[in-house]
Amino acid sequence: MHELFIKHQERLELALLHCKNRSYWSPFQESPSSKYHPEGARLKAKERYDELLGEIFPLSQPASIGLVGKEVSPYTQKELGIRYPQHSPNQLIEASKCAQKHWTRSTTEARVGVCMEILDQLAHNCFLNTYASMHTAGMSFMMGFAGSGANALDRGLEALAHAYKAMADIPYQTVFRRSFARGPVVRIDKHYHIVGRGVAVVICCGTFPTWNALPALFANLATGNPVILKPHPNGILPVALVVQTGRRVLAKYGFDPNLILLAADEADNPITIPLMENPHTAIIDFTGSPTFGTWIEENFHKKLVFTETAGCNSVIMESTDNYDGMIHAIAQSLCLFSSQMCTSAQNIFIPAQGVQHKGHRISFEKVQQDIIDRIDVLTADPKVAAALCGCIMSPRTYHDMNQLRELALQQNALLRDSVHYVHPQYPHAATATPMLVAAEFSNSTLYRKEYFGPMAFVIKAPNAQKALEQAALDAKECGSIASYAYSRNTTFLEEIEEAFLDAGASIGCNLIQHLPINFSAAYSDFHVTGLNPAGNACLTDIAFVASRFRIVQIKKER
Amino acid sequence: MHELFIKHQERLELALLHCKNRSYWSPFQESPSSKYHPEGARLKAKERYDELLGEIFPLSQPASIGLVGKEVSPYTQKELGIRYPQHSPNQLIEASKCAQKHWTRSTTEARVGVCMEILDQLAHNCFLNTYASMHTAGMSFMMGFAGSGANALDRGLEALAHAYKAMADIPYQTVFRRSFARGPVVRIDKHYHIVGRGVAVVICCGTFPTWNALPALFANLATGNPVILKPHPNGILPVALVVQTGRRVLAKYGFDPNLILLAADEADNPITIPLMENPHTAIIDFTGSPTFGTWIEENFHKKLVFTETAGCNSVIMESTDNYDGMIHAIAQSLCLFSSQMCTSAQNIFIPAQGVQHKGHRISFEKVQQDIIDRIDVLTADPKVAAALCGCIMSPRTYHDMNQLRELALQQNALLRDSVHYVHPQYPHAATATPMLVAAEFSNSTLYRKEYFGPMAFVIKAPNAQKALEQAALDAKECGSIASYAYSRNTTFLEEIEEAFLDAGASIGCNLIQHLPINFSAAYSDFHVTGLNPAGNACLTDIAFVASRFRIVQIKKER
Repeated sequence: MHELFIKHQERLELALLHCKNRSYWSPFQESPSSKYHPEGARLKAKERYDELLGEIFPLSQPASIGLVGKEVSPYTQKELGIRYPQHSPNQLIEASKCAQKHWTRSTTEARVGVCMEILDQLAHNCFLNTYASMHTAGMSFMMGFAGSGANALDRGLEALAHAYKAMADIPYQTVFRRSFARGPVVRIDKHYHIVGRGVAVVICCGTFPTWNALPALFANLATGNPVILKPHPNGILPVALVVQTGRRVLAKYGFDPNLILLAADEADNPITIPLMENPHTAIIDFTGSPTFGTWIEENFHKKLVFTETAGCNSVIMESTDNYDGMIHAIAQSLCLFSSQMCTSAQNIFIPAQGVQHKGHRISFEKVQQDIIDRIDVLTADPKVAAALCGCIMSPRTYHDMNQLRELALQQNALLRDSVHYVHPQYPHAATATPMLVAAEFSNSTLYRKEYFGPMAFVIKAPNAQKALEQAALDAKECGSIASYAYSRNTTFLEEIEEAFLDAGASIGCNLIQHLPINFSAAYSDFHVTGLNPAGNACLTDIAFVASRFRIVQIKKER
Repeated sequence: MHELFIKHQERLELALLHCKNRSYWSPFQESPSSKYHPEGARLKAKERYDELLGEIFPLSQPASIGLVGKEVSPYTQKELGIRYPQHSPNQLIEASKCAQKHWTRSTTEARVGVCMEILDQLAHNCFLNTYASMHTAGMSFMMGFAGSGANALDRGLEALAHAYKAMADIPYQTVFRRSFARGPVVRIDKHYHIVGRGVAVVICCGTFPTWNALPALFANLATGNPVILKPHPNGILPVALVVQTGRRVLAKYGFDPNLILLAADEADNPITIPLMENPHTAIIDFTGSPTFGTWIEENFHKKLVFTETAGCNSVIMESTDNYDGMIHAIAQSLCLFSSQMCTSAQNIFIPAQGVQHKGHRISFEKVQQDIIDRIDVLTADPKVAAALCGCIMSPRTYHDMNQLRELALQQNALLRDSVHYVHPQYPHAATATPMLVAAEFSNSTLYRKEYFGPMAFVIKAPNAQKALEQAALDAKECGSIASYAYSRNTTFLEEIEEAFLDAGASIGCNLIQHLPINFSAAYSDFHVTGLNPAGNACLTDIAFVASRFRIVQIKKER
C-alpha cells in the first residue's frame, strides 16, 4: 500500500461514506477566520500574491517557447503582469503522453494517495488562492476563500472518492478455477490492469477557475490519465497555483511532474482547440458557455467529452409561508457573485394574480417591487455589496448588459437598472448590481437563453401552473442547472416534482433559510443532470469517473 | 422492498460478490444432462420448437402493420416459416416511450427484482432456446445450450448486478443539515431520482443472438430505460423468446409489457437505421461487424452508443512446455463454432526458427503441419465435428471463403482448404471446417482485418519478438477482443504483457487445458477493453451501466 494512501486513508473513507449518505461534511476549512489558520497566514499570502505580480511565475515545465499571460484584475483594472511559460499544444501533449505510461502502471492506491496529498497541499494554499481568484475571476474575498477554496477542494475530493470507488472494485488479480465438460479443474491466473484512456485536457472557466477543474483533474489523474489544465486567459493564476503544487507533490514522490501541465494562453492566440484536436487527447472536460460546449460535444465525439455549461434557471412562485425569506433568497441569488454562477436564478415567473402568503394574496406588483427593493437594500452598503457581488470578470458582460438595457429601454421594460457600487477598497473595481427586466410571458425567445452576469427577467405568468409548464419546458429544451420553486401547496409541489423529473432538471423548493440558494454542496448535491442541454457531466456521479479508465486483462495458465 | 427483489436478493448478492472476486460462479445450469433438468424437458422443448414452425409467433405486441420473418435454418436450409408481428419503427418507439415514465418512477429494487425474475424465467426455457439458437445462429446443440443459454444468462445477471451496484449507492433521500456563516442550522430534504435516458435500441447479432443482447437488455431495463430488441433477420426466434418471457413477467407484476419490444424485420427491408435515428432513441447497443459498428459510433454521437464488434485476434508462439496441448488449443479455437466467435483466433504467428519445447526446437514447418493435422483429427468424426463446429450462419461467409480461397490458390498459399463435414443428423447442414492460408509476414494488408468464419492465417514471423510487435500493433490499430500467446520465457511473457497493455488489448497466455481458449467467463473476464477498435463496451464494467441513467434531484426546505 502506498504511504500516501495510508496517510490519507481515513479522510478518503469518510469522503466515501459521505458520498453515500449525501449529508453535510467537509474536511476543508471554509472559514477564513484567523482562529482556524496559522497566525499571519492571510497576511503572508497577500504578500506572496503581491510578490508574484509582474514576475515570471515559477513553474518548471518542459522547455517553453516563450512567455504568455495578460491577466487583468477586475478589482484594479490593472494587468497582473504575471508571465507563464508558453508551449505549443504539441509540446504539451508529447510531455503528457510520456508521463502516462509509468503512471498508468502504478497502483490505484499510489495514484489516489498522490491525489489526496495534492488536495491536502492545496488546502494549505487557501489564502493565496483567494487573492488569485479575486484578481482573476473577480470573486469577493469570501467567495474566493470558500467557493474557489474549500468548496472546490471538496468537489475534487468527491470526484477522487468516486474514482477510487470505481477502481477499487476491480481486484488486481484472481485465480479462476473451473472444470469444463468432464475435464480436470483448470487454473488460470488473471491480472486486471486499469489503464487510463490517454491525455486529458481540462478547459477551466473564467469565473470559477478551480471549482470544476479540480473534480476533472482528480477524476482523470486517479484513473491513470495525465492532465493538461487549460485556464481561461484571465484565470491563469489560480490554475497555475494548482499545477505548481501538483507538480511538486508528483516529483517528491517519484512521479513525472508532467502528469499535470499548465497550458496558459492569451485571448488573441488561444490554444484550446488545437489542444482538443490532437489525436492523443482522449478526454476533454469543459466548463464554460453553452455554445462552445455544444460545439465541443459535436466536434469531438470520438473523444470522451464532459461538459458543464449553463441554461436559463427559473424561479416559480405560487405560495409561501415565509414571504420575506423568499424575497431575500431570490434577491440574494441575483446579487451573489453578480449572477456569474451556473446556479444563479434568471427567469423569475410571478403569477399575474400574485403569490399566496398564509392565506393572503400578495399582488404581482408588490412581489416584483419587493424583489427590486431587496436588491437595493442588499447593494446599498458598499461593504455588503462588495462581499456579496464581487466584481464582473469579463468586459463582455458589460457589453451584454448594455445590449439588454437598450432593448429594455426601447420596450419600457427596465425594472431596475444595473449600477456600479463603489468598492470600499478598490475604487476602480468592475462592479455591477443586478439589472431586472420585465419580459412578456409570450416573448420566450427573449428569456429562453442564458444571460451571463447580473441580468434577470421578471415574467408575469398567467398563473403558477403556466409558469411551471414554461419553466420546465425551458429547462428541458434550453438547459438548467438549478431551478427554484416556492409553494406550500402539496399538490402543486407534486406537480413541480413531476414536471422537473420529466424535464430532466433538478429543482430546489422553498429554499429560504440562511444558505444561499445557489449553493451546491459536494458529497450531497448532484450538480448537472445530463438530461438537459446544460452539460452532460455530473459532479459527481459514478458516470463522471467510470469511463475515464478501461481494463486490460492478462490471463495466464500455470 | 419489492417482492421480486426479496425473492432474488440472495442470488443478486452472490452475483455482486463474484463480480468483485471475479472467480468462477454461475447460478445457471450449463449442462444439458438430463439429471439436472425435469424429466422430458429436452423432448418437450423440441416439440414446442416444432410447433412454432410455420406459425405466427405468439407475442401480444401493440397493433402491428403485418407479419415478417424469413429465417432459414442453417441445419435444414429450410425456412422456419415463423411469422412475427411487424411494426413501423415509430410505432415501436411510441409504445416504448409511453412505457418509460411509470418504470423510471418505480424503485431500483422493483426494476432489479423484475429483471431477476425475467432471468429466472428465461432459465426455465433453456432447451427451447437451444433449438431456437441452433436453427437460426447455426450453433451446435452444446453451444446453443451453454453459450446461448447459461453463459448468456450469466452475462445478463452480471450486467444487472453492475447496474444495481451503480444505483444502490444513491440513496432515495437524505436530510442535509448545516449552518452557513453564523446562521442557524438549515434543514433540506433532498430526494434523488434515478431517471433512464430514454428508449434503448439493442441491435443483436446473428451468431450469438442472446449473449450480448441480455447484458444490454438488463443494463438498460434496470436503469429505467424501455428496450427495443432488434434481432438479426435470421436470428429472430431466440430474441422473440426472450421478449415473450420478459413481457409476460412485466405484465404479471403490473408493469407495461411494452418495456420490452421485439423489432423483427427481414434482410430486404431492414428497420435498424430508422430505429436508431429516431430522436427518442437515447441508447444504442450494437453487436456485429466492425464496419457497421464504426458507422454507428460516428453517426449517432449524440446518443449513448455501446459497441462490441471484432478485430483480428492473434496467436503468438515462442515456447511451450505442453506442445500437444498448445496445438490442440489453437486448432480447437479455429474449429469452435466454425470461428464465428469474436474470440476466435485468426492470425497465427509462428517464428521462422520454430517454437521451443522443453529445450528442443520444433520447426516452423512441423508446427504448421501439426495445426493442420489436428484440425483434420478434430473434424474427422462427423459427430465430433458437429458438436465442435456447428453450422455456418450466413451464406455471406461462404462468399468470403470463396474469395479467400481464390486468392490463396493464386498465390499457392492454401495450406488447408475448408471442406463440408457431413452432419450426422442434418444432411443439408451448412457446414465448413477451417480454411488455413499462409500469409507473408510483410503482407499485413491481407491479415490486418477480420475474416468472419472458419478462415485463419499462418504467418511466418522473422522471430517471436517481431510476431509480438506485429500482433500488438494489429490489436491496437485494427482491434482485437482476445489474443493468445505461448511462452515459458519469463522475460518474453513480461514483454507480451507490456506490449498488450500498450496496445490496450487483452491477451491469454499459455491457455491450454481443458477449457476452450475462446471462452469468456461472466463475473471474471472483462470482455472488450474499449481501448482498441473492436468496440467500446465492456462486459461488464461499471462504465457499461453508469451512464445509462442520470440523477434528478429535488430539494425541499421544511
